[in-house]
Amino acid sequence: MMSARLVTILEGAGRSVTIGGGPVVIIGERINPTGRRFLARALGEGNLEPLLREARAQVEAGAAVLDVNVGVPGLDQVEWLPRVVEAVQAVVDVPLCLDSPEPEALAAGLRVYRGKALLNSTTADPALLDRLVPLAREHGAALVGLLTDEGGIPGTADGRLQLADRIVRRAEREGLPPSDLVLDPVVLAVAADTGAAAVTLATIAGIAATYGVNITLGASNVSFGLPGRAELNAAFLALAIGQGVTCPIADPTHPAVRRAVLAAGLLLGRDPYARRWIGDHRRRPGGPA
Amino acid sequence: MMSARLVTILEGAGRSVTIGGGPVVIIGERINPTGRRFLARALGEGNLEPLLREARAQVEAGAAVLDVNVGVPGLDQVEWLPRVVEAVQAVVDVPLCLDSPEPEALAAGLRVYRGKALLNSTTADPALLDRLVPLAREHGAALVGLLTDEGGIPGTADGRLQLADRIVRRAEREGLPPSDLVLDPVVLAVAADTGAAAVTLATIAGIAATYGVNITLGASNVSFGLPGRAELNAAFLALAIGQGVTCPIADPTHPAVRRAVLAAGLLLGRDPYARRWIGDHRRRPGGPA
Repeated sequence: MMSARLVTILEGAGRSVTIGGGPVVIIGERINPTGRRFLARALGEGNLEPLLREARAQVEAGAAVLDVNVGVPGLDQVEWLPRVVEAVQAVVDVPLCLDSPEPEALAAGLRVYRGKALLNSTTADPALLDRLVPLAREHGAALVGLLTDEGGIPGTADGRLQLADRIVRRAEREGLPPSDLVLDPVVLAVAADTGAAAVTLATIAGIAATYGVNITLGASNVSFGLPGRAELNAAFLALAIGQGVTCPIADPTHPAVRRAVLAAGLLLGRDPYARRWIGDHRRRPGGPA
Repeated sequence: MMSARLVTILEGAGRSVTIGGGPVVIIGERINPTGRRFLARALGEGNLEPLLREARAQVEAGAAVLDVNVGVPGLDQVEWLPRVVEAVQAVVDVPLCLDSPEPEALAAGLRVYRGKALLNSTTADPALLDRLVPLAREHGAALVGLLTDEGGIPGTADGRLQLADRIVRRAEREGLPPSDLVLDPVVLAVAADTGAAAVTLATIAGIAATYGVNITLGASNVSFGLPGRAELNAAFLALAIGQGVTCPIADPTHPAVRRAVLAAGLLLGRDPYARRWIGDHRRRPGGPA
């Protein structure tokens, strides 16, 4: 029952967003061609319109930040990430989360980005930390630290918390403020290992109790391979927010997902007068009962 | 991220149930005429058939224990609680939770009950503790302790935990084993006070960390007066189970509620091979997607 004690501020073309302390912040996950062929195809043809539609729809549905991922095999991310960042910032004013495994693509994205971005992500791998911590600090960007390293994903919460410690101490040493660090405990599919989600939840509780930094995660992977994915994702989001996640990467256009995040925020006392909850039902009376 | 370290065993006419450590146990809430006029009317006419239908339907839907409440204004609970207990035990073999504010009704129910019952409930009020702790001990029953007293419901988690301490120490002094004590943190409507659920969740976390006893609660009150009640109840159940609730009183025939409990159990690592989750979807493919 801890939550972030630090506040991360992100800025977009026309809006700033505060993570921590206030409402749960949804980072919209839909600008991502992985597993979505029509987006991958459009991107390959240089057609950005489908991505921009996803941008507008997610902001309309309540995303306060948008993740931008251009991971299509064969596509040069160093060229395309900045191109998509510029196009998205021309149509929505929320902050962006620049998402690429390639540090040079993130650097190229930052060169055109207007505002204070979130970079997704470094891991505890020293080679990545060497490149990404200074990059975030120089650009005044915030940085996601994924709790894995060159040796893989630790199978226990203790193992992941050791990686958290490595990332937090490295940021401290290099002058990246802890408020600009956002940790990601790693979410694996429970279908493969029914203890996997419990490890993630224990990791979240440990991060919240020890560091007080903001915490993100990509929720939907948890339900891969099982029936009732939306219900499982919704319950996982509630559990994860209850342990300390403040800015999940999720699909706000999915009613069950959006409502689970809003419900958890309300039940944890972060929705005064239930304004967001009631407002969401007024705007979308067709949502699930 | 604590859960009960103690195990409570209940026994019905033909089945015993273990609470704590294993799967989350749903105590079915539907044998309760409060706010359900057709049940109240049937009971007033001495017609038990509608109650027995509720009993069978809840066991079919996955309730491992049934709450039995005969609170109809004008109805003598001392006479009717044992009558209904006998009738319900004749049709289902799960343990029962005898639910009445009248100690003499609980005593009368225990006289006919076959097995090891759960009594719902004492509070921290000394006059109630004087009557109910010995009653539970003499009958070898388990006892719910509701965290309120003659002064009302404390508005803070600390206040409720002081009442928990009073109940736990009283049980200890009178020889009621801590494994036979189940605490209820009290659930109030968030519509009246948007901090109310957060106080309940913090109380649950405190009980789990301090005493390791099993924890119950009546979830559905939390959403009273708000839109989207089923979604809110589902998220609250996930949050509450995440903090340490092991045997919620809920409606297992409501798919969103049953699935939230099953999802939380799976995600907390208490559903090996996802057997319960997958089984529920196989039996009820018509549930929500």
